Amino acid sequence: MKKYIGRQTVKFANPPSVLAAASVVGPKEGEGPLCDFFDVVSPDVLFGMESWEMAESEMVRRTAALAVQKAGLHMEDIRYMLAGDLLSHNSGSNFGMRSFGRPFFGLYGACSAMGKGLGLGAMLVDGGYAEYVLASASSHFCGAEKTFRFPLELGTQRPPTAGWTVTGCGTVVLAAQGNGPYITAATTGVIVDMGITDANNMGAAMAPAAVDVLINHFKDLNVGPSHYDAIITGDLGFIGRDLLLALMDDAGYDLHKNLGDCGMLIYDRAGQDVHAGGSGCGCSAAVFAGYLLDRMKKREINRLLFVPTGALHSVATVQQGETMPAIAHAVVIENK
Amino acid sequence: MKKYIGRQTVKFANPPSVLAAASVVGPKEGEGPLCDFFDVVSPDVLFGMESWEMAESEMVRRTAALAVQKAGLHMEDIRYMLAGDLLSHNSGSNFGMRSFGRPFFGLYGACSAMGKGLGLGAMLVDGGYAEYVLASASSHFCGAEKTFRFPLELGTQRPPTAGWTVTGCGTVVLAAQGNGPYITAATTGVIVDMGITDANNMGAAMAPAAVDVLINHFKDLNVGPSHYDAIITGDLGFIGRDLLLALMDDAGYDLHKNLGDCGMLIYDRAGQDVHAGGSGCGCSAAVFAGYLLDRMKKREINRLLFVPTGALHSVATVQQGETMPAIAHAVVIENK
Repeated sequence: MKKYIGRQTVKFANPPSVLAAASVVGPKEGEGPLCDFFDVVSPDVLFGMESWEMAESEMVRRTAALAVQKAGLHMEDIRYMLAGDLLSHNSGSNFGMRSFGRPFFGLYGACSAMGKGLGLGAMLVDGGYAEYVLASASSHFCGAEKTFRFPLELGTQRPPTAGWTVTGCGTVVLAAQGNGPYITAATTGVIVDMGITDANNMGAAMAPAAVDVLINHFKDLNVGPSHYDAIITGDLGFIGRDLLLALMDDAGYDLHKNLGDCGMLIYDRAGQDVHAGGSGCGCSAAVFAGYLLDRMKKREINRLLFVPTGALHSVATVQQGETMPAIAHAVVIENK
Repeated sequence: MKKYIGRQTVKFANPPSVLAAASVVGPKEGEGPLCDFFDVVSPDVLFGMESWEMAESEMVRRTAALAVQKAGLHMEDIRYMLAGDLLSHNSGSNFGMRSFGRPFFGLYGACSAMGKGLGLGAMLVDGGYAEYVLASASSHFCGAEKTFRFPLELGTQRPPTAGWTVTGCGTVVLAAQGNGPYITAATTGVIVDMGITDANNMGAAMAPAAVDVLINHFKDLNVGPSHYDAIITGDLGFIGRDLLLALMDDAGYDLHKNLGDCGMLIYDRAGQDVHAGGSGCGCSAAVFAGYLLDRMKKREINRLLFVPTGALHSVATVQQGETMPAIAHAVVIENK
């Protein structure tokens, strides 16, 4: 049966249910406005480990175990684990999931990882390949700074356009049966490269990718922005959000009423010195798993368009003067 | 409809057809015994570019364009592109595919990438989410050495257990309709970590992962090794292959008659100074797209079990003394 529609969207015949979700974050995220929505706020940014890489892996492991526990399942019930992060060679996910012994697909889409995991995971469940799928995305401020920017010890000054990588992990368990909310459609993004070369301005690199996937989503499903109670992008931050609104205005879509961004939600901009806002795979993942699903359960949001965004550069490509390709994926989550 | 069986296998209700495949390799691979099977042997290891990273991206771009052309399609016909490589943050795939404007899922499974792409890609086609899916995997010797080992300019001596990363890309177009060969089943691997810490002995790290997926594949489908004309692992090389045979003997499975390994096939061990054999995502991808599919078309192999293997360490985790997790995925390809 053909389940695809338009240019890049699928509609699910048997919409997978979000059975459970878990979020684990670091201390700075615990000082932010969404503190009460996270399952665990670790006071220790090292999560008891000896390196940033192993700290992120431990956070991934704990979040996955908690999500499965909250779903009332055992790890052996999980048919596939999909996981992505920001460390080199996906090591946060690979090391975090290595003890579970479940079939594993590592994903790389930078900060769009949770969008990929939800979209692909929903296809695996809806398609009959799994009863339960786990999707995880994570990032760690210290590991990301070390990887992409400067050693923390240098205390390098950050430009105002830079985001603050979230130390956090969000994990979702999707199921063939459940009481919702349900993943009803997914629009997979294309790579968009508008020539941005400033790795400290990822909002500018990612906004055009979000615009592209939003416009194609609206066209494919023949709906407009007002179809959704909320449209929440991943980690565009304050600068990327303004660019998105302007570009969507130009394209004839008014998102001023219902657009939000996880990178703007997770920190108190004035009080937490985060410049352009939160970023990292863990930003949209933890905000989705913690805050957004809670609002859906309380029926404050009944139809959500969730749009994680990612910048697909590496350290080497930036140093070589290459531009930054970006991608965004749109996932529809609905209450019945 | 439930399509999963046993612990970690799926059987396809409508087996996707391998519509076309393309392989592009570097000069050293062109001097090897499989030379005549590759579509393009580039005399220039830089592929006309100025860095190893952009060289790999250009190789990825050319191979994808060629595969779509050989399939008699246009790039717009491709519903999803799945691609993985060995560079940091998947940049070979991200930059290689950025010009095509097609929905994109970046995968990370190190050298198991082609196994992931074929397995997931077949699910997307069989599940009704796509008519055509493209799966790509690539690696570049110089980019991989720079990333994982030492700058080439140092001329560092290589231990005999080390593999030689293949400069190559293999790309496959899967289709809902076609004349085969067909992808009939896929067993997704779990992460296996047997405590190997020597990044110059990846065969030893990966062999236990291949053993695990093979045994579970045989159990899930209730078949034995003799069910297949050939069982071809990804890049275990000479040392990993011997370990695999010994471990499978211990487990009661005789693979001596029909086991092969892409890393042993692609180079002339005596004449090309490759120590333990070929490795890298591009090794199994190019050997599959070039050589193995040709043997299937000539009906020299009618039932193939293809088992790409990957080591999931990063530079940071190795430097921190961590062990190397590994994974392998098994895909069944059959002529009618």
